[in-house]
Amino acid sequence: MAYRSEQLDDIFLALADPTRRSVLGRLGRGPASISDLAEPFDMALPSFMKHIRMLEGTGLIRTEKQGRVRTCIIEKQAFAAVEGWLAAQHALWEGRTDRLERFVTAMLDKENPE
Amino acid sequence: MAYRSEQLDDIFLALADPTRRSVLGRLGRGPASISDLAEPFDMALPSFMKHIRMLEGTGLIRTEKQGRVRTCIIEKQAFAAVEGWLAAQHALWEGRTDRLERFVTAMLDKENPE
Repeated sequence: MAYRSEQLDDIFLALADPTRRSVLGRLGRGPASISDLAEPFDMALPSFMKHIRMLEGTGLIRTEKQGRVRTCIIEKQAFAAVEGWLAAQHALWEGRTDRLERFVTAMLDKENPE
Repeated sequence: MAYRSEQLDDIFLALADPTRRSVLGRLGRGPASISDLAEPFDMALPSFMKHIRMLEGTGLIRTEKQGRVRTCIIEKQAFAAVEGWLAAQHALWEGRTDRLERFVTAMLDKENPE
């Protein structure tokens, strides 16, 4: 895999929280300011900022400051680390099926020689 | 989504660890006993068992005891919770692109009436 294990640790940990997943869902519809993002949550701003900084640290989002407003933007390519890991699992599963298929075919050939 | 948020919390948390991801990779190639699974790790068995129990608690694996040997088996369908969440994110991204496309098309139509 092209992704460092620690990067996957951080990304999966970031995704293991409903507030952070909800923020990613909102940003999936377009960039938003931190105050707009925080609005639906009954949470003090410093607590909310911890979530934002954790998402930013993983590369799942980036933030840009224009004047007094900090805008958050989703970084879709960072999701590829998770998708790559899942694809690798599927490849293992399918590899196993292929080998099982070859084994069964070999057994049948042995039982029914031409 | 058909998945409870707490289930996703637990699954993502379980995936945020290299030992647990490695165990899932091994089980993706077929069932294995706990002692076989533990073998590559320089870890006391009680510590390793915590990882196994965490994976089992999320439903990503199940275990079966036959005599003295406990065998671990991957539960591929549990990965659908993660895949469903990722698919929902993509749907949001694509929904946004579609709306942007409609907006741009509408603007062009306005600028260039037939």
